[in-house]
Amino acid sequence: MTAEPHSNPLSPERHHGPRLDPQALGLVTDLYQLTMMAGYRARGVHQRPAIFEVFIRRLPPGRGAMIFAGLEPLLQDLVNLRFSAEQIEWLKSLAIFQNATIPSAFWEELAVLRFTGDVWAMREGEVAFANEPLMRVQAPLSEAQWIESYVLASLSYPTLVATKAARMVQAAKGRPVIDFGLRRGHGPHAGLLAARVGWIAGFAGTSHVEAARLWNIPAFGTMAHAWIQSYGEERETDAFAEFAALFPHAPTVLVDTFETLEGIRKAARIHPPVAAIRLDSGDLPNLARRARAILDDHQRSSTRIFASGDLDEYKIDALTRAEVPIDAFGVGTEFITGGDIPKLSIVYKLVELDGRPVIKRAEGKRTHPFGKQVWRSQDCVGIFRGDYVTHRDESAEGEPLLIPAIAGGRLVEPRPNLETIRAYCADRWANIPAELRDLQHPGTYPVSYSERLERASRAMGL
Amino acid sequence: MTAEPHSNPLSPERHHGPRLDPQALGLVTDLYQLTMMAGYRARGVHQRPAIFEVFIRRLPPGRGAMIFAGLEPLLQDLVNLRFSAEQIEWLKSLAIFQNATIPSAFWEELAVLRFTGDVWAMREGEVAFANEPLMRVQAPLSEAQWIESYVLASLSYPTLVATKAARMVQAAKGRPVIDFGLRRGHGPHAGLLAARVGWIAGFAGTSHVEAARLWNIPAFGTMAHAWIQSYGEERETDAFAEFAALFPHAPTVLVDTFETLEGIRKAARIHPPVAAIRLDSGDLPNLARRARAILDDHQRSSTRIFASGDLDEYKIDALTRAEVPIDAFGVGTEFITGGDIPKLSIVYKLVELDGRPVIKRAEGKRTHPFGKQVWRSQDCVGIFRGDYVTHRDESAEGEPLLIPAIAGGRLVEPRPNLETIRAYCADRWANIPAELRDLQHPGTYPVSYSERLERASRAMGL
Repeated sequence: MTAEPHSNPLSPERHHGPRLDPQALGLVTDLYQLTMMAGYRARGVHQRPAIFEVFIRRLPPGRGAMIFAGLEPLLQDLVNLRFSAEQIEWLKSLAIFQNATIPSAFWEELAVLRFTGDVWAMREGEVAFANEPLMRVQAPLSEAQWIESYVLASLSYPTLVATKAARMVQAAKGRPVIDFGLRRGHGPHAGLLAARVGWIAGFAGTSHVEAARLWNIPAFGTMAHAWIQSYGEERETDAFAEFAALFPHAPTVLVDTFETLEGIRKAARIHPPVAAIRLDSGDLPNLARRARAILDDHQRSSTRIFASGDLDEYKIDALTRAEVPIDAFGVGTEFITGGDIPKLSIVYKLVELDGRPVIKRAEGKRTHPFGKQVWRSQDCVGIFRGDYVTHRDESAEGEPLLIPAIAGGRLVEPRPNLETIRAYCADRWANIPAELRDLQHPGTYPVSYSERLERASRAMGL
Repeated sequence: MTAEPHSNPLSPERHHGPRLDPQALGLVTDLYQLTMMAGYRARGVHQRPAIFEVFIRRLPPGRGAMIFAGLEPLLQDLVNLRFSAEQIEWLKSLAIFQNATIPSAFWEELAVLRFTGDVWAMREGEVAFANEPLMRVQAPLSEAQWIESYVLASLSYPTLVATKAARMVQAAKGRPVIDFGLRRGHGPHAGLLAARVGWIAGFAGTSHVEAARLWNIPAFGTMAHAWIQSYGEERETDAFAEFAALFPHAPTVLVDTFETLEGIRKAARIHPPVAAIRLDSGDLPNLARRARAILDDHQRSSTRIFASGDLDEYKIDALTRAEVPIDAFGVGTEFITGGDIPKLSIVYKLVELDGRPVIKRAEGKRTHPFGKQVWRSQDCVGIFRGDYVTHRDESAEGEPLLIPAIAGGRLVEPRPNLETIRAYCADRWANIPAELRDLQHPGTYPVSYSERLERASRAMGL
C-alpha cells in the first residue's frame, strides 16, 4: 500500500475531464498490476507463459443463467492497448517506482508494450453459468496481469445488464421493450454500453440517440412534459394535435402532465388518431385499463398504450400476467443500474503458469487449475442439458464454447456484427431449460468437471 | 414512439466502439429532446426564456444528506456541447424527421447550436437535500430541453457515490479508505468518475492509475495473488521478501493466497518489516485480531493491517465499533456500484417559462413553480439548521447556495480545482446535524418554502 504525494502541476483542463483516451488505455488499470509487471521484469519471469481465466463465481440471486456481453468492444480495446509517453513519465515519478530496483529496460519496454497473447472466449451473447470459464487469456505473464482490471471492468456490467434486459424481454411476452435509461446510468458512458447490450438481448430499441447512431439501433422517442407545459393545461389538446401534425410518423403523446384520465380523453379525440399514448406515472394497471376503454370508446382501438416508470422484469411480468392492456414498455432506472442486482462477481484468475497447474486456495471458493474448455450438450430439440468443463487439451461431447477471439495479439477475423450477436443471443436464450427462466426461483444448470480437472484440483489440496 | 429502420451502412469500426466523442456530445441525449427542439422551432417558441431545475425527489433509504457531485466535469461539457455534421445528417435521415414538417433552418441552426444560457448551481461538494434545487438552468427553451439527459446522467451517479464514500469515511473513523473499485464499475468510465468523487468525499486515494494521474489523486496498490502463485506455496516467504526488497517504499503483502494465518506468520518474519499486510477474504474480525497478535509477537507493531473484500459503510462501522485492529480499508464493489443504493431519483423540471410559473401536477409529487434560490442557516457553531427555498428574486437570511457557474454560455471563472472541492466537501459534511449521520435511521433535515412559493403552488392547484 503506497500513498503517492500529489504534487504534480496540472493544467486546468486536466482537472475535471472524466474521459479515457482510446489511444492510451494502458493506464486504465490498478496500480498493483504495474508493480507486479515491474517485479516480474526484475525477476526475469515476465515472459513466462501464463493462463488466466474469467469466470462468474456465483450467479446473482434469482438468476438461472447469464448473458455473456461486452466482448467485442473489449477485444478491440485489447489489441489497441498501450501507454502514452506522458503516462510512462508520470508513472516513473511515483514514489513506489522511484524507490524500486527495477531494470531501466522495463520503462522502455512499457513504451512499446502491446498485448501479444491469445484470447479464447465464449461468443458475445452466449448463455453462461457460474464456475465455468467465459474467457481464457494465454499470454506472457506480464501482459496477462496488465489487462486484468480492464477486462473485468469491460465484461461485468454488460453481462449484468444484458441479462437484466433478457429477463425484461421475457416478462414482456412479445411486447416491445425499449431502453430509456441514459439519464439514470452510472455516468454518460453507461448509457452507451446499456443501449448496446439491451439491443443484443432483445430490446426493440433505445431513446439514446448517439447509441442508436453508432450501432444502428432503432431510435425511439415520445414527448416531453415540457412540451405540454409550454401550452398550459387549458391547451393540452392543442399540444397533442400540433405535435401529431408536426410528427405524423407514429406520434406518441404523454397524457399524465395534469389529469391523466382527462389527458387520455383529449388524446383520444385527436384526428388522425395518434399512434400511442404514454403513461409514465400513477397506478398503471388501473390507468391502462381505463385508457383502453376510453380509446376504444373513441374508435381508437389501433392507438397503443405505452407504459414506463420504474418498471422492472417483476412489474412487467405482473402486468402481462394480469393481461393489463399495455402494448409496449419503456425501461430506465431498473434496467440501466441493474435494478435489484447492480453488481456481478466476475473474477480473473491465474490457472496455469509454464504449463503447471495453479490455484488460489481461499476458503469456500472451489476452483480448478489449468486452462480449460467448456463443452455444452443439447437434447434432441436443442435445449441445453449441461456444461462439461475439461482441460483445454481434452476432447468431449458437445459444442466447445471457447473459441479463438485474439491470436498473437490480433483479432481473429471476421468479428460478428451487432445483428449477428443479437440473433445468436436470441437463439441461445431460447434454448435454456424452462426452469432456469423462473424470475424468482430458477433451477440450477448442471456444470460438471472432467476427472482430469478434479484430480488436479484434489492434488492441490482442494 | 417511433421505431427507426436500421438500414444505414456502418463501417466495421463503428459497430462496437463504446465511446463518446468529446467534440460531439450533442447527440448524447434522448430522441424526444430533439423532436421537442424541432417542434419548438416549428412553433417559433424555441427562444422563449425557460427555467429548469434539478432536484432530488426523495433521499434514498438510510440517507440523511447527499453530497452534490459531478458538477465541474458537467459544466466543461455543457459549454462545449455541439453536434457533428455527420450526426446531423444521420438525424435528418430518421423517419420521424423525414416525415415531419420542420423548417429547414432548424438543421442549419443545429449545426452551430451551443448552450448559451446561464447555470446557477450549488458548489460541487455541497451537502444537499431533497426537494430543493441543486442547479437552475436559465436558457432558451430549446437549449434547456437539449441538455436534460446529459445533465442528469452527469450528476446522479457522482452524487450517489460521493455520498456513499462520505459514509464509508465516516464509518472508518479516521482510518484511510481507498477506492479499489475500477474492475467492478458500470463500465471502465465509471471507475474514473468514482475515483474522482471518492477523493472529493474524503478517500485517501485510489488504485485506478489513470484517475490518479488525471486528477493528481494518491495512487495505492498492494500485490496480486498471481505474484504469490508465481512462486508457489512452498516459496511464499520468498514471494514476500523479494517483493519488499524490490519495492521498499511501504510494501504491503497479500497473506491469503494459501493459508492465511501461515501467510501472516511468514510476512511477520520478513526483514525489514513490511509496511502492511492485506486481508482480502475470510472472517475479518477474527483474522485481523489474530494477525495483530502474530505481528506484535514478532515485534511488528508498526506493520499495519489493511482489509478489503466486499466492505461497505455498515461493515466498516461494525469493525471500527468492535475495535477490530484494522488500520485501513479498501473498498470496491460496494462503493463503485453504490452498493445497497445503486440509483438516485434526480429530476430536471421546467418551473418557469416566459416569466410565468410552470409545474407538473403528478399525483403525490409536490412541486413549486418558478426559478428558486436556497438559503442555508447555521447555528452559532456552524451546524446547518435548515434550508429555506425562495423565489429567485427573494432575499432571505442565511447563505445563498446557488451561485453562477455558467453565464451566457461561458464558464464563470475561476473554477475550483479538485483540492478545493475536497476541502469544501469536508467542511460542509462536518456541519450537518449529528442525527443526519446515523447510517441506518437518519433524522430529517428541515427544508421549507417561502410564502410566495407556497402561494404560487396553491394557485396552480397543488
